[in-house]
Amino acid sequence: MLEHTSKQFDLELESLRTRVLQMGGLVEQQFRLAMEGLYSGDIAQLDRVITGDARVNELEVELDEACTQVIAKRQPTAIDLRMITTVIKAIGDLERIGDKAQKISKLGVRLYNQHASFAPDVELRHTADLALAMLRASLDAFARLDATAAAEVVHKDDQVDTEHTAIVRQLITFMMEDPRTISRSLDIMAIAKAVERVGDHAKNIAEYVIYMVKGRNVRHASPEELDREVNDH
Amino acid sequence: MLEHTSKQFDLELESLRTRVLQMGGLVEQQFRLAMEGLYSGDIAQLDRVITGDARVNELEVELDEACTQVIAKRQPTAIDLRMITTVIKAIGDLERIGDKAQKISKLGVRLYNQHASFAPDVELRHTADLALAMLRASLDAFARLDATAAAEVVHKDDQVDTEHTAIVRQLITFMMEDPRTISRSLDIMAIAKAVERVGDHAKNIAEYVIYMVKGRNVRHASPEELDREVNDH
Repeated sequence: MLEHTSKQFDLELESLRTRVLQMGGLVEQQFRLAMEGLYSGDIAQLDRVITGDARVNELEVELDEACTQVIAKRQPTAIDLRMITTVIKAIGDLERIGDKAQKISKLGVRLYNQHASFAPDVELRHTADLALAMLRASLDAFARLDATAAAEVVHKDDQVDTEHTAIVRQLITFMMEDPRTISRSLDIMAIAKAVERVGDHAKNIAEYVIYMVKGRNVRHASPEELDREVNDH
Repeated sequence: MLEHTSKQFDLELESLRTRVLQMGGLVEQQFRLAMEGLYSGDIAQLDRVITGDARVNELEVELDEACTQVIAKRQPTAIDLRMITTVIKAIGDLERIGDKAQKISKLGVRLYNQHASFAPDVELRHTADLALAMLRASLDAFARLDATAAAEVVHKDDQVDTEHTAIVRQLITFMMEDPRTISRSLDIMAIAKAVERVGDHAKNIAEYVIYMVKGRNVRHASPEELDREVNDH
């Protein structure tokens, strides 16, 4: 009986894990499609991302409920409990990445509607690829309980921030040179900010993974403290 | 024995609640001092907010640990469990409000250092007061398990958003009229955004409170659905 219960419990935990990864996959896709649509000018695609966000929101609510139910029924402790509290937090960040994809798409639609011959005048794709890679790596680290891989994600966020700062500088220069571009440059700046925030949320997820595996909270640790924590077996 | 355990458990829950309110009080104060310092030009005060954020971060980590321990030890169910998962999420939002206070202070210090005679040329105090009132009301609703009061907080966020949009428009006008103000207007825009985000986080906390009291997640509900949910006894 006990064994049966424990097996059932394992299945439930496994199911939570799988569903987080599915939600992560959907959010990844939303963000990718938003950036693609922004550069290709495919308004129909941007519209699909905008309406698709409702599914991301549903998944968050469903998974949140599922976590509470598993805690109530199974009374998990130690790593199992940390896994579930990690899921509770990670889905909040995934949902917010979904919001960013939606926001990018809405701004994209607006820009194309306002400027017949719109083309983004700064290169955001590299930063977006970095942020997307961070998101993918944080989900992988979650799936494989890999604190070292998670720590790499945390470190990578500096790169995204540096690129974001450079993009903002570039946009300021455009605005100063031609004040007629101010309104549109601000929209592009908001898109750049959304991309940067995707990196932040991926970093958050990676930090939860480290907490899950190591049992230590590294949210406000310095880079050196973080590495020490992860390499301490 | 059972009664003793249950009494102990009640004390532990009470202690979690109290500590969240203390953390909330500190965060409230950080935000208030940041806005005050921004308008009075009191750099020492802004510096205190910047360094004070470390304490907010510590409280988040401590409370997060405490929640996990109570779940592991007490195996709470129903409303007790929802209270604890609410705490886990709310402290994340409180910590982020702390970050916003720190950010406002850093931008304030920068603006005063760059412009000898700096004075904010848009009025952010009213929006900040609204956001602060939302934060206070969401913490009150949490303390009193008051879903109706929490729903009011959720509705108030629209006001903050509307004021924020008006401020952004005003800043765009300044920038267009005098491109030399672009860099500084962008800093003020970032402060306005931080204020607006405080409202968002207060709204998040209010939504968790509704979930805690009603057992139903209203995160993505329409205003009408939300009122129906809260008034349904």
